[in-house]
Amino acid sequence: MGTPDTDGAAKLAASLFDRLFEATRDDPGVTRIAYGEGEQTAFALVAEAAATSRVERTFDAAGNQFLTLPGLDRSKRIVIGSHLDSVPHGGNFDGAAGVIMGIAAQKALADAGIQPAFDLTVACLRAEESCWFPHSYIGSKTALGVLENGIADQVRRSDTGQTLAEHIDALGFDADGVRRGDAWLDPATIAAYIEPHIEQAPALIDADLPLAAVSGIRGSFRYREMVCHGEYSHSGAMPRHLRHDAAVASARLVVAMQALWERLEAEGEDLTVTFGQLGTDPANHSFSKVAGEVRLCLDVRSQSKETLGRVENELKAFVDTIGAETGTRFDLGPRSGSEPAMMAPHLVAMVNEACRAKNLPVHTMASGAGHDAATFANTGVPSVMIFIRNANGSHNPDEAMALEDFNAALAALTQMLMARAAAWTLK
Amino acid sequence: MGTPDTDGAAKLAASLFDRLFEATRDDPGVTRIAYGEGEQTAFALVAEAAATSRVERTFDAAGNQFLTLPGLDRSKRIVIGSHLDSVPHGGNFDGAAGVIMGIAAQKALADAGIQPAFDLTVACLRAEESCWFPHSYIGSKTALGVLENGIADQVRRSDTGQTLAEHIDALGFDADGVRRGDAWLDPATIAAYIEPHIEQAPALIDADLPLAAVSGIRGSFRYREMVCHGEYSHSGAMPRHLRHDAAVASARLVVAMQALWERLEAEGEDLTVTFGQLGTDPANHSFSKVAGEVRLCLDVRSQSKETLGRVENELKAFVDTIGAETGTRFDLGPRSGSEPAMMAPHLVAMVNEACRAKNLPVHTMASGAGHDAATFANTGVPSVMIFIRNANGSHNPDEAMALEDFNAALAALTQMLMARAAAWTLK
Repeated sequence: MGTPDTDGAAKLAASLFDRLFEATRDDPGVTRIAYGEGEQTAFALVAEAAATSRVERTFDAAGNQFLTLPGLDRSKRIVIGSHLDSVPHGGNFDGAAGVIMGIAAQKALADAGIQPAFDLTVACLRAEESCWFPHSYIGSKTALGVLENGIADQVRRSDTGQTLAEHIDALGFDADGVRRGDAWLDPATIAAYIEPHIEQAPALIDADLPLAAVSGIRGSFRYREMVCHGEYSHSGAMPRHLRHDAAVASARLVVAMQALWERLEAEGEDLTVTFGQLGTDPANHSFSKVAGEVRLCLDVRSQSKETLGRVENELKAFVDTIGAETGTRFDLGPRSGSEPAMMAPHLVAMVNEACRAKNLPVHTMASGAGHDAATFANTGVPSVMIFIRNANGSHNPDEAMALEDFNAALAALTQMLMARAAAWTLK
Repeated sequence: MGTPDTDGAAKLAASLFDRLFEATRDDPGVTRIAYGEGEQTAFALVAEAAATSRVERTFDAAGNQFLTLPGLDRSKRIVIGSHLDSVPHGGNFDGAAGVIMGIAAQKALADAGIQPAFDLTVACLRAEESCWFPHSYIGSKTALGVLENGIADQVRRSDTGQTLAEHIDALGFDADGVRRGDAWLDPATIAAYIEPHIEQAPALIDADLPLAAVSGIRGSFRYREMVCHGEYSHSGAMPRHLRHDAAVASARLVVAMQALWERLEAEGEDLTVTFGQLGTDPANHSFSKVAGEVRLCLDVRSQSKETLGRVENELKAFVDTIGAETGTRFDLGPRSGSEPAMMAPHLVAMVNEACRAKNLPVHTMASGAGHDAATFANTGVPSVMIFIRNANGSHNPDEAMALEDFNAALAALTQMLMARAAAWTLK
């Protein structure tokens, strides 16, 4: 069976991006408030575009929207999805690209008169951007019935102050169902979850590649309240060997962790190490005083739990050694973090195979940012992401995904959806 | 001629410290406001104690007080001095120890019936602590007639908001004289300026030495508004080689400058290097963003102008290299600084010789903090300082100078004052 032509689907996608931009425009960029105006508009626009492919439209208790093209075997489904909310004055592609690619793939199959192996459901997920409700993956968690107990009545939307449950009910959905964990999707019947998404860093730009299969979503450990305790003293008079300089100790830690990253990267480990915040104490520091205290935030991510453990052990050794050598003391403070979410290797292989078939370069990379795919993977659903090249990061109006790259990914995805039933059940 | 006994002088000093503490007490510690209550009380107490030695009391236009024991040759004078103001809730010894040692040395000579080679003048200087008037060395500058034009009417006391000139007139002194540069002291007739002072760091404590001659007062260069410009990006997604991480770049600079200090110290250079303030931007940083900006304050001090120049050249090379290697850019911002003030080598030798004669350990060190002696030295007056061991730094109520160490320094100073006229004019 040949691959269906995706030109018509690409045209639909292009027009849908335009309509979505105009309908949710909020200069500069777009604003699609979770459970608010922009997200509702996006849901309606996408459903309307899908209707031309004769798909079935469903909502779950939380108001997530599912657009299903019936498959040969209706007992299972392949889900293509992402979220449709955006940060305030965000870009047009973050989230939306995944949903629109699902709609376009459905159209490509329908136009060619091809019925997929299983039901092909496009999931329009809600509330992924935690700027609206301070909780991660609300859309995918409610879609799978795994939202943590009590959260629906605890988290409040940043602009209205109303709870998630109140917003769910206000749109006519069913907060009680959410509280009970009702879900329309059943992990046991999902053959695969596929989330196309713009890359949020310029790695593909730098490597000159249009797209990549994602091997895993990095987990993390974080010490957001680390303190290095030294001793304030006279900058001009205190001899070097008598100092307890928290600035020097902290600088040494940053440099040591950076060198560790370099070393592990050279060994082929997946890793990022970031001290995003650090500083002396404005209430007590002075240009003429040796720094008596520095606060630091450390964020370490890897798709390998083993790598995270190794880095954390090294960190503890560093703070001991550097503390002893500089006469300072590091207090790591509370630890937080998340588990890595591995994508399913057979789905990664299927993405790569589809790329090869479409004469596209083959590349696999980790996702450093979190995505709804993490919820699916951690619920036992075989999952994969497809990253699309994107300039200028995300969460800003300057996101820049070329439609050419989107279309390349659409062609690969459509190719992948031609796979027979047996391919999807290989695990 | 043998050395006079200093026991009686030491007793006077001990009682004067006690009376001064009680009279200017402001729990915790003491407060002696420049041109205010505590300083006035200290001036009166010291003059009263000196009166028992039949000294001549004089004030200059700015209200600095001079207590002179006539010498064999009245055409020249040796000045022993320091300031009598303190920071709010400061310690009893910072400044006062130098004046009290002068009074005690006069008593030791007078009690033994010894007339010094030249007039021996104790200078009670005003307003050295820049917490009161934001200008350095007001007392020594007015005493030598070198206060910068206009300053008397520009600087305002931090508590009253009144100008220095207003405060001078309010105490019955002569602001117009200060404006004209009138001075009672004439640099041309000062054979030596000697300033005993507590050490403000624990170097003597650490070296287990009661006192030291000071070879020079460190000068400095400062970059108080240095900025490292990087680029904010996603902490989990941005690959290492594409980052422009201002935190990593700044940490590398701190570590490089510390290593430079170590290297120059090993070569015998006098130096301190301090990054007393540094930090990411609270308005834009986040634990999940690569740091796009770090601000730093650098304070480098040395008693050698050449060393300062060498370090500044290295700094410029470091920021270029590190900037290029990390994809960041350092902006050093405005430079400020001060010239080192070298103490007169023959006076340093005389202090050391006196220590040897009194069986005291001989040690020479740099002063990292500024002192009125810098004004005297930079006006061409041969100057020297004697540091007295002191725990817990200064500018706090916990200053801890043992009277035993003070007495050792007093014995050395008195010994030094026995030198013949010819010794003082050697330069």
